[in-house]
Amino acid sequence: MRDAYHEELDSLTDRLVEMTRLVRSALSRGTTALLDADLQLAESVISHDEEINSLFAEVESRISELMATQQPVAVDLRVVIAALRIAGDLERMGDLAEHIAKVARMRHPDTAIPIELRDTIIEMGQIAERLVSKAGTCVATRDVELAKELESDDDAMDRLHRRLFRVLLSNDWSHGIEAAIDVTLIGRYYERYADHAVRVARDVVYLVTGDRALNGSSTA
Amino acid sequence: MRDAYHEELDSLTDRLVEMTRLVRSALSRGTTALLDADLQLAESVISHDEEINSLFAEVESRISELMATQQPVAVDLRVVIAALRIAGDLERMGDLAEHIAKVARMRHPDTAIPIELRDTIIEMGQIAERLVSKAGTCVATRDVELAKELESDDDAMDRLHRRLFRVLLSNDWSHGIEAAIDVTLIGRYYERYADHAVRVARDVVYLVTGDRALNGSSTA
Repeated sequence: MRDAYHEELDSLTDRLVEMTRLVRSALSRGTTALLDADLQLAESVISHDEEINSLFAEVESRISELMATQQPVAVDLRVVIAALRIAGDLERMGDLAEHIAKVARMRHPDTAIPIELRDTIIEMGQIAERLVSKAGTCVATRDVELAKELESDDDAMDRLHRRLFRVLLSNDWSHGIEAAIDVTLIGRYYERYADHAVRVARDVVYLVTGDRALNGSSTA
Repeated sequence: MRDAYHEELDSLTDRLVEMTRLVRSALSRGTTALLDADLQLAESVISHDEEINSLFAEVESRISELMATQQPVAVDLRVVIAALRIAGDLERMGDLAEHIAKVARMRHPDTAIPIELRDTIIEMGQIAERLVSKAGTCVATRDVELAKELESDDDAMDRLHRRLFRVLLSNDWSHGIEAAIDVTLIGRYYERYADHAVRVARDVVYLVTGDRALNGSSTA
């Protein structure tokens, strides 16, 4: 009985790792759609979000089932509670990638990102991808040291986010209000995406050590 | 043993209702701080967020303890899973109220809200308060019908959010980029706050009926 239980837990972990892959891909394609004003790519991110939502629903219902039938305690209970939270964060990351794609779609055939911000958005996308990729490794390996690295990657995201505002507020900004709104929202989506990745890593730390850094309290 | 368990559940419900009161108050004071450029009020929202975070940590740890010692099943398990999620949403709503207060603090002694948007922000604040207040009643009473009302209140919030953008994008906008960024972010904070209140109500529906509408999937 316990073996079947742990097999199910391993299988759930695989599904969570699969979710990190899907939301990384969604963000990567969303960023490209945004920078290249690629409507088809934007549409593919938007339509594929349903896949992430379904995976989330599957993970949630399997965890509920597992809790009900196996009544895990101690570390096993921590594992399932953490898995529930991780799934929720990943689902939200999928939504945020979708939001980015929707801005790309709304502005097509124009691009929402003025030339002087392309580098910043590219970097934000890269950091976001690095964060979710590391988060996926943390989920798969339960590597607490790696999980702690995500906090400093997230600091880099915050610096880029501030740079975005500096450009928006400089006297050189010539793209008007609509572009400023787009960039403000897009910046927020990347920042939130990164923050959820950090929360995933924190939940891995919790799962392994029982230490629960309060999520959300240190976010911007 | 089961009686002590249900007493603890009732006590946890009281704490969740208390959280809804605190985050409603934070939002109400944050809105006033924003509209009146009231620095002292803004500071009080910011410093009191710690109280909400502590309450969240307490609720979380008591729920974990309860799950570990009592191993709830079936409807009891749903109750504790829902309580965990509700606590997480409320904690986040506290953060969003704090974000609003921080914009007020940043712009003080000026106000971040131009005159032509005051009414919209006042309405957004009122809807947000109504939503969290109803969410608190739902948590206290497990009233599924009331919980369903929150979805349409949230539609009203979305309409106001769109109105905000219409004003920002009108030719009459004369407040420049910085004010547009502030308003864009503030609008997003209210919209997210409302969305989390709806999620609380959905979790009450789940708790009572076992039906779990996928959270996040219908959000903007």
